[in-house]
Amino acid sequence: MLTDIAISRAATLQPIGAIAATAGIPPEAVEPYGHHKAKIDLSRLPASTAHGRLILVTAISPTPAGEGKSTTSVGLADALNRTGRKTMLALREPSLGPCFGTKGGATGGGYAQVVPMEDINLHFTGDFHAITSAHNLLAAMIDNHVHWGNALDIDVRRIVWRRVLDMNDRALRDIAQSLGGPANGYPRESGFDITVASEVMAILCLASDLHDLEARLGRIVVAYTRDRRPVTARDLKADGAMAVLLAQAIKPNLVQTLEGTPALIHGGPFANIAHGCNSVIATRTALGLADYVVTEAGFGADLGAEKFFDIKCRQAGLKPAAAVIVATVRALKMHGGVAKADLNAPDAEAVRRGGVNLARHIENVRAFGVPVVVAVNRFDGDTPAEFAVIEEIAAAQGCEAVLCTHWAEGGAGAEALAEAVVALCDHKAGQFAPLYSDALSLFDKINTVATRIYRAEEAIADASVRAQLARWEAAGFGHLPVCMAKTQYSFSTDPAKLGAPTGHVVPVREVRLSAGAGFVVAICGEIMTMPGLPRVPAAEGIRFGAEGEIEGLF
Amino acid sequence: MLTDIAISRAATLQPIGAIAATAGIPPEAVEPYGHHKAKIDLSRLPASTAHGRLILVTAISPTPAGEGKSTTSVGLADALNRTGRKTMLALREPSLGPCFGTKGGATGGGYAQVVPMEDINLHFTGDFHAITSAHNLLAAMIDNHVHWGNALDIDVRRIVWRRVLDMNDRALRDIAQSLGGPANGYPRESGFDITVASEVMAILCLASDLHDLEARLGRIVVAYTRDRRPVTARDLKADGAMAVLLAQAIKPNLVQTLEGTPALIHGGPFANIAHGCNSVIATRTALGLADYVVTEAGFGADLGAEKFFDIKCRQAGLKPAAAVIVATVRALKMHGGVAKADLNAPDAEAVRRGGVNLARHIENVRAFGVPVVVAVNRFDGDTPAEFAVIEEIAAAQGCEAVLCTHWAEGGAGAEALAEAVVALCDHKAGQFAPLYSDALSLFDKINTVATRIYRAEEAIADASVRAQLARWEAAGFGHLPVCMAKTQYSFSTDPAKLGAPTGHVVPVREVRLSAGAGFVVAICGEIMTMPGLPRVPAAEGIRFGAEGEIEGLF
Repeated sequence: MLTDIAISRAATLQPIGAIAATAGIPPEAVEPYGHHKAKIDLSRLPASTAHGRLILVTAISPTPAGEGKSTTSVGLADALNRTGRKTMLALREPSLGPCFGTKGGATGGGYAQVVPMEDINLHFTGDFHAITSAHNLLAAMIDNHVHWGNALDIDVRRIVWRRVLDMNDRALRDIAQSLGGPANGYPRESGFDITVASEVMAILCLASDLHDLEARLGRIVVAYTRDRRPVTARDLKADGAMAVLLAQAIKPNLVQTLEGTPALIHGGPFANIAHGCNSVIATRTALGLADYVVTEAGFGADLGAEKFFDIKCRQAGLKPAAAVIVATVRALKMHGGVAKADLNAPDAEAVRRGGVNLARHIENVRAFGVPVVVAVNRFDGDTPAEFAVIEEIAAAQGCEAVLCTHWAEGGAGAEALAEAVVALCDHKAGQFAPLYSDALSLFDKINTVATRIYRAEEAIADASVRAQLARWEAAGFGHLPVCMAKTQYSFSTDPAKLGAPTGHVVPVREVRLSAGAGFVVAICGEIMTMPGLPRVPAAEGIRFGAEGEIEGLF
Repeated sequence: MLTDIAISRAATLQPIGAIAATAGIPPEAVEPYGHHKAKIDLSRLPASTAHGRLILVTAISPTPAGEGKSTTSVGLADALNRTGRKTMLALREPSLGPCFGTKGGATGGGYAQVVPMEDINLHFTGDFHAITSAHNLLAAMIDNHVHWGNALDIDVRRIVWRRVLDMNDRALRDIAQSLGGPANGYPRESGFDITVASEVMAILCLASDLHDLEARLGRIVVAYTRDRRPVTARDLKADGAMAVLLAQAIKPNLVQTLEGTPALIHGGPFANIAHGCNSVIATRTALGLADYVVTEAGFGADLGAEKFFDIKCRQAGLKPAAAVIVATVRALKMHGGVAKADLNAPDAEAVRRGGVNLARHIENVRAFGVPVVVAVNRFDGDTPAEFAVIEEIAAAQGCEAVLCTHWAEGGAGAEALAEAVVALCDHKAGQFAPLYSDALSLFDKINTVATRIYRAEEAIADASVRAQLARWEAAGFGHLPVCMAKTQYSFSTDPAKLGAPTGHVVPVREVRLSAGAGFVVAICGEIMTMPGLPRVPAAEGIRFGAEGEIEGLF
C-alpha cells in the first residue's frame, strides 16, 4: 500500500473548472486559486432551494487507534456518486499549526482523500490567515482604545479577548503584554489561542451571509466595564473592518476527491470551545447543488454530533436526514480495555465490552430523531467474529452496521454503506429536533447535555459560575445554546474513563460567552486552546526533497 | 477628480491571462488567484536572459507633503509602454497592518495605479501571511527546543528571534512570555515586530530561488549559546519546514496597471531594518521578459537607493541602467523651511533653499555610476517659476528635470519622462558599482555610508557595539554589506534636520545580524519595528457600503 501522500501525488486531478461544472456551478461563479482550488462566488450561483439530503458522519469516542471519520466521509461521498446519486462533500479546513506538531493533515487517507492535500493543509486559500488578521485587529483596537483614553471605560482587568496564531506555541499561552513604558500601553496579562479557537472562526462558520457575519462580529463581547457592562466589537467600531478582512474567507472553497467528487472545504472551528463543523454557508451551498451532502463533525458524537445538532442545525434551520457513526474494531477493543500495543490480537470479547461506547452514541444520535447506520472502517487484521459483534450491537439498537473498505479501495469500498444511507434517507422520515429548547436556563441546558448525552448524574458548578450565567441571562443571552468543552476521549470529563461510564458528575470549571457565534461555552475539565509542539516536532522532518516534492508533511 | 478608489473601481480590468500573454508569460506558467491576480510558476517560463534595462525610481527625503514614488513608477511604466517600449513593473507588496492605522494602500494613485487595489492591499495572494507563519514557526521551535531540554545549550537571555504579526499593535512590542507554569516553558522577555520587519521577508526578497531560500533560512541566527556561539535555524531543523511554508510565496505575483502594463508585485521588506525593495526573483523575471523594467526602493535615495545598490544589486549582480529621483515642488518647499499649512503659496525661493536636498540625492546616486533624471510630480498650484528652479538645480548637477502629470493623466502624462529615461539607458553607459567593497570592515562600511551618503562627519559607536561587530567578523560575517536603519526624513539621524544638513555625526545605537538575508543592520536613532494605531484608526471607518463596495480603506 502506498502512503497517503504518494497516492495523492499519483492522482491525476481534474481542472477545478471541470469539477465546478460537475457540481452545477457556472464558470462565472468560480474564482480559481491555482488550477485545483477555487472560491465560489455565491452571488453568481443560480437561485436554488436547499433540496439535498444532509448526512452527518460522526464517530465513537476517539482513541489512539484511530477511527477514520474524514476518510469515511470521503469514501461515502464517492460511493454515492459512483452509484448514481449526485453528491457533494462539505468538510472542515485543517489547521496549519498542528501539521508541524504531531498530526498529519485532515484530508482523509488511502484512496479516500480530498486533493490537492498539500495545498489544503498548507495555507489553502488563506481563510485561516484572514481570520487571524480579523481577530488580532480587534485585539489591537481594544488596547489602542484604552491607550488613547479609554472613552468606553473598559476595565483592563476584564478584557476577555485574547489574540490568536495558527501555530502550536505554548510560549504564548500566558503573556504579560504592553511592557516597556507608556508608549506601549497599559501592562496587563493576556495570551494567544490557536486560530481555530477564535470566536471569529466560529462566527464565520455560523454566519448565513456577509451581512450576518458583520452583525455577529459586532456582537462579540471583548471586555466589561468597571460596572460589568459588556463592551462589544461594535462599540469599538471594529466590526466593519473585520468583515472587510473576511470578504474572501467567507466564500466556500471547492476542491475534489481522488474520484472527482466535488468537495466544499470551508471553516474549521475547534470542536471543544466551539462547535466543530464546517461553515453553514458551505453546507447550504452544497444542499442547493446536490441531492446528497455528506458532512462531518469533530470528535465523537457526544461532542461533535451534539453540537452539530444543537448549535449548527438549530441556528441554520438544517434538518439532517441520516447519521453515520464510524467505528473500528481496534478502537472498540481499546474501549474494551485492550492496550494499544495489543490491538493486533483478535479479541471479539473486548470488542463486545467496548461496544457499550458505540451503543450509547447510537442511542444518543437517535434521540435527536436522526436515523443511524454504523460504518465499520476496516483495518488489516480485523476478523469476521469481531465484525459480527459490532453488527449485533448495532442490531440491538435497531440499526445496521456496514463493513467499509474505502481506505484501500476508494468509493467502491463504501457502496454498501451508501446504499444503507440512501435507504435511511428514503424510508425513515427524519424527525430531527434539538435536544433542548431555547427557553431553558443556561445551566439547565448544560445539565441536560450532561445527563442525557454524557449520562452523568448531574452537572455541578461553583456559585461564581452560576452567578456569571445569571448575569448573562439578565443581559439577554439566556436564549443561546450551550457549547460543551470537555475531553473527547470519554463520555465523562476524565479522559481515562473509556467505554460507557456512569455515576460521574460534570464539573463546569468556567463559562465563556461567544455572543457573536451565538453560544455559551461551558468548560468542563482542562481544555487546551493553544497546543504545544512535541519533543521532536514533525516540522523537523518537513522539507523539499531532491525532486521538489514535500517530504515529512504526513 | 475622482478618488483613487473610485478610479480603480471604474476601471475595466483585463483577465490576468491576457496580461500574462502581453508579458510573454505562457498560460501553463500562470496560476490564477481569482480573475485579476496570478502567481507565476518560474519553472514553466521559457529560458531567457535578463536582457531588460533596469530603472530605479527613488526620491528626495520624504516629507508630509508627499512625493508620489509609486505613482511615478506606474506612470513611467505606462508611458514606456505607450511609446512602444516593452515594459514591466516590479514593485513591493503593501503591508496589511498599516491599512488599519493611518496610511492608505501602496498601489499608486490617480490614473497611475496598479489594480485590483483592494485585493493587493488586503491579503493579496497570501505572501505576507506565509512569511508570518514561517517566522513564527521558527520562534515556536526555539522555545520548544528549550522546553524539552535545550540540547543546543541556548542562552535564553540571548534569544534574538522575536515573533511577527502583520498588524499595528503596540501592545506586543514588549512582552513577557511563557508565563503560567512549567507546561508553558521558561519565562523570558520577548516581543513582536510587524511582518515586513521579519528577516524572513528580507530573505524571500533576496533569494535567487527556492534552494537559495532554504539555505538562507538555515543561516538565520536566532540565539547564542552561553559561550556566545550563534545558534541557527538549521541547528533547530526549522529551515526545511519554513521553506515549505514559503513555496507559494516565493512565486512572483502578476497584476496590471490601469493601462494594462504587466506588474510583478512581490515582497515588501521594511526600508529601515531591511533593504526595502521588491524581490530579486520578481526583478529578474521582469528583466527576462521585458526590455525595460521599472522598480522602486523605499524612503528617500539615501536609504532606499543606497540599499538597492549596496545590498540588492550587489547580492543579485544587477546593473541598474538609470535612476529617476522623484521630487515635488511642495516637498522641496518643506525642505526649504515652509510649514505644511503654508504650502499652497507660491514660493520659488523656498524651492531653491530646499533644493539642496534634491541636489545631494542626485550627487549620491550618480556616485554609484547610475545616470539620473529628476521627475517632478506635479500638484495643483505648482507654478512655472518653481518648476524652473528645480530644472536649474538638476542642470547644475548635469541632469534633466521633467514635469510629470501621470496622476491626472496616466501614462500620457509621463511620456516626456519616459523619453528622458530611454535616452539615459541608450546613451549613458551604466558604470554601476557599489559604494564599498566586501572586504572593508563592518564599521568602515557603516562609516562610508555615513560620510559619503549622509555627509556626516563620522559614524560613532560604543565599545560594546564595536565589540559585537568584531565578534561577527571573527565568526565569518565580516564580508556582509551593512543595512542602515535611520530616520527617512533627514540625511542625519535627526528627523527635524531637513534640507542637506552638515556637521552631524551618526551614532550607531545597536547592531543586528541578519545572516540569512546577508547583511548587518546598523540602528542609528529610534527605529520602530512595530507601529501602533493612531487615536482614531482608519479601521473604524472601514466597512462594506450598501452596494457591497469597501468604504474607508483609502
